[in-house]
Amino acid sequence: MLIVQKYGGTSVANVERIQNVARRAVETKRQGNDVVVVVSAMSGETDKLIGLAKTISEMPDERELDMIMSSGERVSSALTALAVKELGEKSISFTGRQIGLITDAAHTSARIERITAERLKKAIAEGFIPIVAGFQGISPGEDVTTLGRGGSDTSAVAIAAAIGADRCEIYTDVDGVYTTDPNIVPEARKLDKISYDEMLEMASLGAKVLQTRSVEFAKNYNVPVLVLSSFNYNPGTLVTKEDAEMEKVVVAGIAYDKNQSRITVVNLPDKPGIAAEIFKGLADANINVDMIVQNVSSDGSTADISFTVPKTDVLKALKNTEDTAGKLGAMRIDRRDDIAKVSIIGVGMRSHSGVASKMFTTLASHGINIMMISTSEIKVSCVVDAKYTELAVRVLHEAFELDKPYAGATAGFEATD
Amino acid sequence: MLIVQKYGGTSVANVERIQNVARRAVETKRQGNDVVVVVSAMSGETDKLIGLAKTISEMPDERELDMIMSSGERVSSALTALAVKELGEKSISFTGRQIGLITDAAHTSARIERITAERLKKAIAEGFIPIVAGFQGISPGEDVTTLGRGGSDTSAVAIAAAIGADRCEIYTDVDGVYTTDPNIVPEARKLDKISYDEMLEMASLGAKVLQTRSVEFAKNYNVPVLVLSSFNYNPGTLVTKEDAEMEKVVVAGIAYDKNQSRITVVNLPDKPGIAAEIFKGLADANINVDMIVQNVSSDGSTADISFTVPKTDVLKALKNTEDTAGKLGAMRIDRRDDIAKVSIIGVGMRSHSGVASKMFTTLASHGINIMMISTSEIKVSCVVDAKYTELAVRVLHEAFELDKPYAGATAGFEATD
Repeated sequence: MLIVQKYGGTSVANVERIQNVARRAVETKRQGNDVVVVVSAMSGETDKLIGLAKTISEMPDERELDMIMSSGERVSSALTALAVKELGEKSISFTGRQIGLITDAAHTSARIERITAERLKKAIAEGFIPIVAGFQGISPGEDVTTLGRGGSDTSAVAIAAAIGADRCEIYTDVDGVYTTDPNIVPEARKLDKISYDEMLEMASLGAKVLQTRSVEFAKNYNVPVLVLSSFNYNPGTLVTKEDAEMEKVVVAGIAYDKNQSRITVVNLPDKPGIAAEIFKGLADANINVDMIVQNVSSDGSTADISFTVPKTDVLKALKNTEDTAGKLGAMRIDRRDDIAKVSIIGVGMRSHSGVASKMFTTLASHGINIMMISTSEIKVSCVVDAKYTELAVRVLHEAFELDKPYAGATAGFEATD
Repeated sequence: MLIVQKYGGTSVANVERIQNVARRAVETKRQGNDVVVVVSAMSGETDKLIGLAKTISEMPDERELDMIMSSGERVSSALTALAVKELGEKSISFTGRQIGLITDAAHTSARIERITAERLKKAIAEGFIPIVAGFQGISPGEDVTTLGRGGSDTSAVAIAAAIGADRCEIYTDVDGVYTTDPNIVPEARKLDKISYDEMLEMASLGAKVLQTRSVEFAKNYNVPVLVLSSFNYNPGTLVTKEDAEMEKVVVAGIAYDKNQSRITVVNLPDKPGIAAEIFKGLADANINVDMIVQNVSSDGSTADISFTVPKTDVLKALKNTEDTAGKLGAMRIDRRDDIAKVSIIGVGMRSHSGVASKMFTTLASHGINIMMISTSEIKVSCVVDAKYTELAVRVLHEAFELDKPYAGATAGFEATD
């Protein structure tokens, strides 16, 4: 088999762990497989580097930030190659550029356009265990780009797709994907299997196991992804195509996200094009708006628009919204940071009704007020006061019987970025 | 004027110092110049990275080592670019690859083959202050290479030559080039001017102010190099073409080097080709032999050969010499580590006689025994017992009246690598 193994920051946090990664890669190779390893930066490195940049500049130029951040993976990949060589296998490190990982020019959150993988394929054919620096690519203008937080997952899955790997293994510091965060709900269960779509919702809703885009890639190119721990040999969770069994489960997992802020524009004149103006401004500034709710006043003359943005973007978003809202004649802008989004996810929702109302009833019966609601085919999200996050996750986990085997089949973790 | 400024590791050691570098670059720009900045890694970074690699592998693969080491300058160059932008000037960081700094493939001590400098020239023309990551280039095979310790000096001078800069300024933690190490001789004077050839001897003989190859580059391309401190506004020392004034000075400076060991092959049969055999072996093993002395026994039948090598190579050199000497029938091999090389340097030696004999007399009159001697047109070096190093430097400094203005015109520091 041709296997891509991706090891996250905690798995390469120090020399001993890098040696452990090398051992696992070599074991896999000696079991008769071809192996490509993708590594993140040693944990803490990227944050340290961003910290330096932010000491110099409150809003660092993103091209320069990419140059700075991408250095962490260069170091960890070369160190891992050294460790593999010490174990007697041929190894060579590659940067994003060296494997031809071409992205667009959207620094700090670039999208992969294609991977030529010439040197990579050649190295595999020659029996090397190539070690690729994750998280990074190169723009058409020959500048270094990075793929956003957790981008090494995306690198790994995209590389797996580009070289036609049989499987992409994502090694992390947890055993796999759980029905929800075991730190909040001790009864949370590890799932054997989860569909791409469920994982996609979990990832985008705040589960930190896999980056959203990596799951999109896996889905589009049908790459089986195995999430497992680099610290033990437990079986992990397979992220794969949906099957009939998955459909039977109404709610597979519960995710939560404390990293958003809510902005409310109060008393906008209610006329066509108002929302468009506001969100065009935000889109132009590359701010990722998540939930949007609009209320019209009883006389229909004014409207309030609320939306959520990542906490990291809230200052930029406020500034941007103030400009637009001022022109449009809004009364004021409110900002609220102490909110959390709690979501239930499951492909079974498509074929089961009453799921959302059960969620609302459960929250209400525990005195948890819902501020915003958003739904999709396979998830329901509610924004609540941040102080109720853990309570909400716990009561929903119980209400949907996720602690019972086969009752649920997914998992959630707190978003960290 | 078009000025290249190079800042060493101590000048970019932390955020405050990086901001200081940015300020100096911006000042120079606002005085009406075009400025290119070349930076080293933040001091300590490169050693930290090498330390990590050596923990994993005793003799790390040099391609991987280059990948690891080159990351330090990427970070410091981008941080400096951010700091310049904060001061309101346009700035952009470039890697070795991005300025087209092509080297051979000799990892960890690559030689510059050419610099295309396309993006660099364009950035200058557009009014940017480009910040270039020093010490690094790219091999014809698209792998990252580094130029060896102090390689950022060479980057800076080579870039200055490639873009036709009027001057290359090397900022360091000392004020300029001194007649000798002020730590040993408090009367040592800073020189206003020194010739390329003198600087070359000083650099290769143990002065750590400038990397030897950077001076060679400066000489070959006739780039005026100004050595000065980034911590004050003192005038510094200009390294430049020889002029009539310099010729008048017999001894310009005194250098010393404690980083060599002496190996003596005792009782070799004295026949043609013996020395060739020994030094061919060392050359093949890439060991840099410095001084060589051969004594023939009174009956002419046997010879002793002594030579010095860098302390870091002494084990490799011993092993290599034992192999050859054994085959040739030598009696034994001696090794001595507690030696030092003390040298006097000055272009004026060409036109003045008796300089060497004055050196020998001075040392002898202070009871310092000379073990080896080597001379060139513009320098005399003596190997002495290491414990006499400081004494030798002091008495020579006095004997050649280097404490008096215009009596001398050069400078020395202890070699650190």
